Amino acid sequence: MNFVLLEPADFIGETRVRINGRRFEHIRGILGSTEGSELRVGVLNDRTGKGRIEKIDDESMEMTVRLDSDPPPPLPLRLVLALPRPKVLNRTIAAAASMGIREIDLINSWRVEKSYWSSPRMMESNLHLQCKLGLEQAGDTMLPSIRVHRLFAPFVLGELREIVKDFREGHALVAHPGAGIPAPRNVTDPVVLAIGPEGGFISREVETFLEIGFTAVNLGPRILRVETAIACLVGRLF
Amino acid sequence: MNFVLLEPADFIGETRVRINGRRFEHIRGILGSTEGSELRVGVLNDRTGKGRIEKIDDESMEMTVRLDSDPPPPLPLRLVLALPRPKVLNRTIAAAASMGIREIDLINSWRVEKSYWSSPRMMESNLHLQCKLGLEQAGDTMLPSIRVHRLFAPFVLGELREIVKDFREGHALVAHPGAGIPAPRNVTDPVVLAIGPEGGFISREVETFLEIGFTAVNLGPRILRVETAIACLVGRLF
Repeated sequence: MNFVLLEPADFIGETRVRINGRRFEHIRGILGSTEGSELRVGVLNDRTGKGRIEKIDDESMEMTVRLDSDPPPPLPLRLVLALPRPKVLNRTIAAAASMGIREIDLINSWRVEKSYWSSPRMMESNLHLQCKLGLEQAGDTMLPSIRVHRLFAPFVLGELREIVKDFREGHALVAHPGAGIPAPRNVTDPVVLAIGPEGGFISREVETFLEIGFTAVNLGPRILRVETAIACLVGRLF
Repeated sequence: MNFVLLEPADFIGETRVRINGRRFEHIRGILGSTEGSELRVGVLNDRTGKGRIEKIDDESMEMTVRLDSDPPPPLPLRLVLALPRPKVLNRTIAAAASMGIREIDLINSWRVEKSYWSSPRMMESNLHLQCKLGLEQAGDTMLPSIRVHRLFAPFVLGELREIVKDFREGHALVAHPGAGIPAPRNVTDPVVLAIGPEGGFISREVETFLEIGFTAVNLGPRILRVETAIACLVGRLF
């Protein structure tokens, strides 16, 4: 946590907040902040700035805040992600949020195990928390929107086909090891990027993406874990 | 595991291997392979190819292997990494190995907690295992070399100063959020890349890197976790 993410409910005055729970424990325990310490802060989906700890006790702390900056600009990337297994889901969502990805579609795929969909980690409250952890890491305030699509073909052939029309030609990419062309570099327009599950999309799924206008791209001869592949592609694309 | 990493001790004939333990359990339990299945294989620090399962029982399996390919080329990157906390160390090492990084220097830094150095995860056997997990993910066989440097200044001002001379000007980079210039893109020559701990290198440490010829680079306004930052930089640089 490099940054204290505030929510409207934390405000007890126009420029004063009171914090308890997870964030308070972290600030006191891990950061070791004390009265008078200055911290970077931001309000969820709003501005960023500095906070000064005015009062701290065993259960909560109060800060005065000055919100004089905008959050960093979003990454112009919409991520269409085959649902990762639960163990990987949390850190993938947090990493995506930390990189400034603002739109995430979690989709089904042949190699996504059915049980993943009923994991407690799929609860909205958990996905929300992982996004907030990513924002706290990065120093951002803008919560990504996460949408869940349980059926592959209806989503891809229906909604995603429409979504793709908003992107420039060649800016809808499906990452597929060993197939297609090397991922493009340094693009300036928004990109929609589809990433498969462990083991990859099956051929028929890749073909469905191609049918609606996606381009298959690879990241070289190595097969990377999903969270490594996303970060690698983000670094390469933007 | 997308790939079975074999070791010389697995060979029971010129083209026949017997596997038990972790790899066997994974192939049987997770991949669900059976007699006749073909798998991608490779020999540690040697060639890659295909294996065919000839025999499988409760404790081990035998494969015949054909090693007809070279492993993917290394990533021309030497990583100088402030020792991450133990929880993050394993997946950072595995991810680095999966991306083809062949040289890793784990170094001290002001913000590296002393206790990290005595974590059981720092045992050579664990670092070795994490590298192998990364290679199994990626389909590579070439084990990275990991070297451990407990003292910051003697390593950076001594050995690293000499190492840097082997790299072209502007190809020794220290990643430091908010400082320096944007990280370069699409470099063709080898790079040595230093990445700080959570909270970053302190100013004096950054100055020491600059003094021996490093350039400070950033990845934009966000502060990323170490494993995200490494993958993002790899994607951007190469």
